[in-house]
Amino acid sequence: MAGTVQPDLEMAASLFEALRHATQRGRGVVRDSYGAGEQAAHDIVRSAAEAAGLETSVDALGNLFVTLAGRERNAPRIIMGSHLDSVPQGGNFDGAAGVVAGLCVLSAMSRARVVPECDVSVMAIRAEESAWFDIAYLGSGGAFGLLDPDCLAIERSDNGQSLEATLQQQGFDAQPIRERRRLLEPSGIRAYLELHIEQGPTLVARGFPAAVVSGIRGCKRFRNARCTGEYGHSGAVSRPYRRDAVAATVAFLHHMETVWLRHEEAGEDLVLTAGELCTDPDMHGPSKIAGETRFVLDIRGLSAATMEAVAAEARAAAARIGAGYRVDIDLGTTSDSPPAVMDSRLRSALMGLLERPFEMASGAGHDAAVFAKVGIPSAMIFVRNEHGSHNADEAMSLEDFAVGTRALLELVLNFPL
Amino acid sequence: MAGTVQPDLEMAASLFEALRHATQRGRGVVRDSYGAGEQAAHDIVRSAAEAAGLETSVDALGNLFVTLAGRERNAPRIIMGSHLDSVPQGGNFDGAAGVVAGLCVLSAMSRARVVPECDVSVMAIRAEESAWFDIAYLGSGGAFGLLDPDCLAIERSDNGQSLEATLQQQGFDAQPIRERRRLLEPSGIRAYLELHIEQGPTLVARGFPAAVVSGIRGCKRFRNARCTGEYGHSGAVSRPYRRDAVAATVAFLHHMETVWLRHEEAGEDLVLTAGELCTDPDMHGPSKIAGETRFVLDIRGLSAATMEAVAAEARAAAARIGAGYRVDIDLGTTSDSPPAVMDSRLRSALMGLLERPFEMASGAGHDAAVFAKVGIPSAMIFVRNEHGSHNADEAMSLEDFAVGTRALLELVLNFPL
Repeated sequence: MAGTVQPDLEMAASLFEALRHATQRGRGVVRDSYGAGEQAAHDIVRSAAEAAGLETSVDALGNLFVTLAGRERNAPRIIMGSHLDSVPQGGNFDGAAGVVAGLCVLSAMSRARVVPECDVSVMAIRAEESAWFDIAYLGSGGAFGLLDPDCLAIERSDNGQSLEATLQQQGFDAQPIRERRRLLEPSGIRAYLELHIEQGPTLVARGFPAAVVSGIRGCKRFRNARCTGEYGHSGAVSRPYRRDAVAATVAFLHHMETVWLRHEEAGEDLVLTAGELCTDPDMHGPSKIAGETRFVLDIRGLSAATMEAVAAEARAAAARIGAGYRVDIDLGTTSDSPPAVMDSRLRSALMGLLERPFEMASGAGHDAAVFAKVGIPSAMIFVRNEHGSHNADEAMSLEDFAVGTRALLELVLNFPL
Repeated sequence: MAGTVQPDLEMAASLFEALRHATQRGRGVVRDSYGAGEQAAHDIVRSAAEAAGLETSVDALGNLFVTLAGRERNAPRIIMGSHLDSVPQGGNFDGAAGVVAGLCVLSAMSRARVVPECDVSVMAIRAEESAWFDIAYLGSGGAFGLLDPDCLAIERSDNGQSLEATLQQQGFDAQPIRERRRLLEPSGIRAYLELHIEQGPTLVARGFPAAVVSGIRGCKRFRNARCTGEYGHSGAVSRPYRRDAVAATVAFLHHMETVWLRHEEAGEDLVLTAGELCTDPDMHGPSKIAGETRFVLDIRGLSAATMEAVAAEARAAAARIGAGYRVDIDLGTTSDSPPAVMDSRLRSALMGLLERPFEMASGAGHDAAVFAKVGIPSAMIFVRNEHGSHNADEAMSLEDFAVGTRALLELVLNFPL
């Protein structure tokens, strides 16, 4: 069927425009998780779906499902999805692009009177961003019963209202979270497909309009690393008597860069970042040796084994370099999110559908990681985007969006693979 | 005459006790420059001097002179001195030890009816610490007409009162500063001798009670260095596309440590310190590549040429490493205080007076640097002190103080050298 049905790009243009118009606040958009901005986006998508003659439903946690009925309604279905919330002062495309793409696919199939073998749904997922409730994947994680019920007490970062009170106020139901109850059965989903803007610069730099995602990097993060030495006079304390926390931290982080390079040269997928690094503003001084630093070391990659090896090397280096500088480098514990493997058959099929096939890792997390975690074959398409994401300057062209959406449509039309 | 006159150590013990009693506030002492604490210390010293039958006078800036008259009252005199102010919550000995030592020397000479060839004075210097008026050496610099008159507008860090208003309130006179007028003529001073506690750990670590100071390290400081890269997602931006300010800063500072080691191996006196180093707390994040760091690079040594060479190497490395990491490392300008050379004849004479001669650089600045700057032969004696200075835990034993003070006394008695 490929080539005969085209995604409904007029619908895409008008949906992006409507979403921006409804949720722009200042330069950026504000689609606050379980708040007015996210709800406005859901209302727009639902109206468009109903206008296109598609079925709609909302689950207990507010996830919106738009469905094109298949021939066998009880067969495991295909879900295309992404989220509709944004960070504060976010961009118009992070999340929304995947929902709009799915809707364009269903609308095109419906208009072409394609009746798929199984139901094909778009899932407009709630609350993917951690900016509001300090936890990511509330909508998808909640749908699979994966959330710790303690999360209901988390307060929204801007207004302090708990997640539980917020759900109730919005007319949703916290009970499934409290009971860790599944709203979606993994066995009822044959594939999860997510189109998303790339959040880094790779596609712009390499000149590809879209890419197939090889996997979603896991993250092993030393969130509260600390180096403790001793404050001293910068002039009066010679090298042998120093316990310089900055010098030791610099030596440690420099060593970790060589570790990164070594793994990279061995062909392993890895990124290392120390994004926060500070001496103590209440204690440091221009003529003082620093007695303390605090820093974050963020390790990401597609292989859990590689990340574990790097974390082990970090611990060993912290002990060795700390002893050399007579300081204590305490990396603390890691917070871990495992890498998510994308389905190899779906990846191959998508690569075959791109005119200029290109595959790359996703460094940021996505709802697809949750679907993959519960065993659902999952795949992602990245669309080229300038200026990164989570800011007002996200820039995705409709032409590039069309490349990704056509691949998505053709993959759905090609089922069963 | 050496050995026949002994410094008056009972006087020392009672003066240290009186100073602590009068100025202790909580754990530390507070002898605020041109404030009540400093004045209390001056009153104690003046009373003790008068009780010992010594002449006293106070100059227009509040510096106190205690004098034992010599045979030739118009000949250039010897000044022993140090300061009586302290940092907030400082220790009992930083500064005061040198004044007390001088007084013990004069008292002993007076009691032994020694009439020196020239006048020998103790100068209890005002406002050496920069903690109160953000400028060091107000008393000694002012006495030599070296202060920029703009300093009169500087406000005291705690109460906001200008230096000019403070001087007036204390009954002193800002006019000499306004006119850059000298209160002391360098040609009238044949030597300046300052005993001071060591502010670093060297004497404790090496087991010497006292040392001769070889020179006072100068300081060349990049106070406002800044590295500007680009914020990005820690997972989504691969190495070739990063402009990581932390990674570049770490590489730069690590390189500077190798520069330090190289100069040290060449036998040059040098210490390098990055005492402040921070990503921007308003912009950084655990999953962000940092787009900015700010740091201080403090270069100290006894040779101006070495410091200039290191600063030049820093500028070259900043350009080279910045380019490599695609960031801008802007070191900014340096603030400079030149090293102060101690007089070689006085140094040799003092070394000959120590039972276990040991010579070391002073990393911190002292009033002696001001006297050396105007061409007065100057020398310093360090006395062993635990726990550094500028804190309540300064710990100097009276035994060690006696070693240093005896050397000071004998040097004075040995004049002319």
